[in-house]
Amino acid sequence: MLMGRVTVRRPVRRISATGDRRRPDALAAEEPLELRVGGRALAVTMRTPGHDVELAHGFLLSEGVIGGREDIAAARYCDGVDDQGRNTYNVLDIALADGVPPPDTGVERNFYTTSSCGVCGKAALDAVKLRTRFAPAEAPFTVKSETLSALPDALRARQKVFASTGGLHAAALFTPDGEIDVVREDVGRHNAVDKVLGWAVLEGRIPAPGHGLLVSGRASFELVQKAAMAGIGLLAAVSAPSSLAVELAEENGMTLVGFLRGDSMNLYTGDHRILT
Amino acid sequence: MLMGRVTVRRPVRRISATGDRRRPDALAAEEPLELRVGGRALAVTMRTPGHDVELAHGFLLSEGVIGGREDIAAARYCDGVDDQGRNTYNVLDIALADGVPPPDTGVERNFYTTSSCGVCGKAALDAVKLRTRFAPAEAPFTVKSETLSALPDALRARQKVFASTGGLHAAALFTPDGEIDVVREDVGRHNAVDKVLGWAVLEGRIPAPGHGLLVSGRASFELVQKAAMAGIGLLAAVSAPSSLAVELAEENGMTLVGFLRGDSMNLYTGDHRILT
Repeated sequence: MLMGRVTVRRPVRRISATGDRRRPDALAAEEPLELRVGGRALAVTMRTPGHDVELAHGFLLSEGVIGGREDIAAARYCDGVDDQGRNTYNVLDIALADGVPPPDTGVERNFYTTSSCGVCGKAALDAVKLRTRFAPAEAPFTVKSETLSALPDALRARQKVFASTGGLHAAALFTPDGEIDVVREDVGRHNAVDKVLGWAVLEGRIPAPGHGLLVSGRASFELVQKAAMAGIGLLAAVSAPSSLAVELAEENGMTLVGFLRGDSMNLYTGDHRILT
Repeated sequence: MLMGRVTVRRPVRRISATGDRRRPDALAAEEPLELRVGGRALAVTMRTPGHDVELAHGFLLSEGVIGGREDIAAARYCDGVDDQGRNTYNVLDIALADGVPPPDTGVERNFYTTSSCGVCGKAALDAVKLRTRFAPAEAPFTVKSETLSALPDALRARQKVFASTGGLHAAALFTPDGEIDVVREDVGRHNAVDKVLGWAVLEGRIPAPGHGLLVSGRASFELVQKAAMAGIGLLAAVSAPSSLAVELAEENGMTLVGFLRGDSMNLYTGDHRILT
């Protein structure tokens, strides 16, 4: 079956100083996943197939729809088929547990929309900011700086698909002693994070104050928010953070580490969690 | 005023082999931009402030709402203010020209949603695929491989904000002889592309079969689609393409170049546009 097809082989013509030749190449698979809740379309994300149920759980946690695995009753693929009659596994329907309010659908879900403008500048930020039901500020997580420094290499060693395609983001959850408990890869950096958070949901480990979140790329507002929604106190990124990522980490009492490369790193907020 | 604030200074604690010190650091600014069409919220994107009107034009072109500048009558910032009474410039309202149909809002806009599942696998892909009103396959654009190879360095030289923050994506439009006509940077790769396409809209240069699109990162489905919606025949990416990016480029008769680094590159589709 097609499910879990994480790489796709394609012919490629490679031009370089040493020649011009055709050869097969492995590409990171990208396919749409439509998430439905109770049969209603909630979102379509372009993702690398595999770990879709985790992705759905992590997405719903990040969006504040669920707080743990008990809030989801069932997840099933719809019976969509492609031209060859094979299930495409590209639509996943989530049944929420009794008493869990379904999410509002539509882009206006968080807006107080009027045809005049009003205090719309604040509204734009308020619309994207979600309130976490956990308390990342209280996460007791601490880690030695040298333990942190070892993590990017450990992550890369476990990025199986990146090794063959050079084209995937990765996210991982790690413990204070530097153990990586889960790694997920995806063409979308948000999806990679949703998959590791969904793993934690399914393991019954949310909130996850005893884990740090590591990402292979940059730290944006949305990635800090996802960590906060999971009750995680520390986000470490291999690349740069944005201004709003730092602001949100500070507001939430979280630790934000950027440019985690070699034996150096930048601590933007919450440096009490880093032991030197 | 706050408009166009592309970097933000923040204190940072840097730990490295040579010490542990506090210093100010420049971060790429990230702020939400709410796009409205005729007063109705259409989307919120996390973007680097600046070139917002271009971003709006490029976004609406990419989404198939407009085909050129004549389809937009006016763009204006709403009068939202922050705690200090300053305009936040984070809500932009677009007035479409008479006779231009407004976009459907809401995530379900492209869905044929039912409570049963039906042929939902195909529906997920159909929902994200847009039909371009131009013909990228017919773009006469050709470029020498050595001209292409010189572009990433030329792009980097013009990435002013990246140089200070290490945290921005970039996109550029270039001519067959390797001239870069416009460069835009953003924390979001889609936004960087929307900004350069919006520049072309505002310049009256859409469709743009005489330009190639260069991006500093990976080539995803959505970036290929944006190029197609602008009538552009060639997309060159410094990093890897995804499987669906290659498929869509092939379907549209476009040229997709990946791993454009040093004097080498991978040609995935449409290699007739590359002269060697």
